[in-house]
Amino acid sequence: MGRYEVRLGGSGGQGIILAGVILAEAAGIYDGKYVCQTQSYGPEARGGASKAEVVISNEEIDYPKAIKPDVLLAMNQKSCDTYLFDLKPKGLLIVDSTFVKQLPTSMALPIPFTQMARDRFGREIVANIIALGALATLTGVVSLKSLEAAVLHRLPPSSAEMNKEALLVGIEAAKNILHRK
Amino acid sequence: MGRYEVRLGGSGGQGIILAGVILAEAAGIYDGKYVCQTQSYGPEARGGASKAEVVISNEEIDYPKAIKPDVLLAMNQKSCDTYLFDLKPKGLLIVDSTFVKQLPTSMALPIPFTQMARDRFGREIVANIIALGALATLTGVVSLKSLEAAVLHRLPPSSAEMNKEALLVGIEAAKNILHRK
Repeated sequence: MGRYEVRLGGSGGQGIILAGVILAEAAGIYDGKYVCQTQSYGPEARGGASKAEVVISNEEIDYPKAIKPDVLLAMNQKSCDTYLFDLKPKGLLIVDSTFVKQLPTSMALPIPFTQMARDRFGREIVANIIALGALATLTGVVSLKSLEAAVLHRLPPSSAEMNKEALLVGIEAAKNILHRK
Repeated sequence: MGRYEVRLGGSGGQGIILAGVILAEAAGIYDGKYVCQTQSYGPEARGGASKAEVVISNEEIDYPKAIKPDVLLAMNQKSCDTYLFDLKPKGLLIVDSTFVKQLPTSMALPIPFTQMARDRFGREIVANIIALGALATLTGVVSLKSLEAAVLHRLPPSSAEMNKEALLVGIEAAKNILHRK
């Protein structure tokens, strides 16, 4: 695998940064890749479009930020609108359709992560974990085993069962999309 | 303030990445600065020297990684040895003297963060929060108010009181060093 760039976007409370840290640990610690994980805070973040980026490679990484993301996960409309512009032409756009109502391209893959989190767990906060399960399944950028290990390492043991289940919910949703295509 | 670079180093379980995320949020969200926060995973990380970097500026940040850190917080010997080399000539070296027994320079500021965490809270895991309190006091790079807000935002409410106290323990330790000089 050459350089692969993931950008995660959303608003403050959606757990974007935690998702970035987990994805980076999955690829770096458990899959043994080179990884750089970045987040920036500035006027954009305060406007409801915070982002976290993960660059993954089999080789050492020179520039740590995403240049042309291979995949954008947009958890709200603002981050979808703000961060789509430099997605690779054949890049993957995954959106949380709970909040992203205007799809900027017919290529977008809408999955209602937050709605699923509410319905299944009664807790919106796990939407990011569901989204990670879907993203890993759709891209193959990290192994599902490594992703689960990173989730369990980074989150409290008391929520381990819920988080494992949340990953499975995301994996299933992604598989449904893949089979539909 | 121009560009200010912070590097945090330690081994896997020492909460370095979480400390980086908290420091970045304190400066970016609560102090309103531009911030880039980076962590890299590679062979170094697997050898017990993981690092997190926070670049803080009043202006937009072009290159997100530390080039010449203004301060290095080394939570173990390995990260002290590995990451000291490109500290700025007049940069600040803060070490957890619980684990860093060989000080590479007489300019180093040794504080036994982990020992303090054990003694005061019976929990080594808060050593990183104590260290953040000391680092903020010694450098002034984030306001203590913003640091506390970021700690409380990022960590579970159930540990809020302990973490507030841990910050104070770190602030006090730093003040003792400043008064001794």
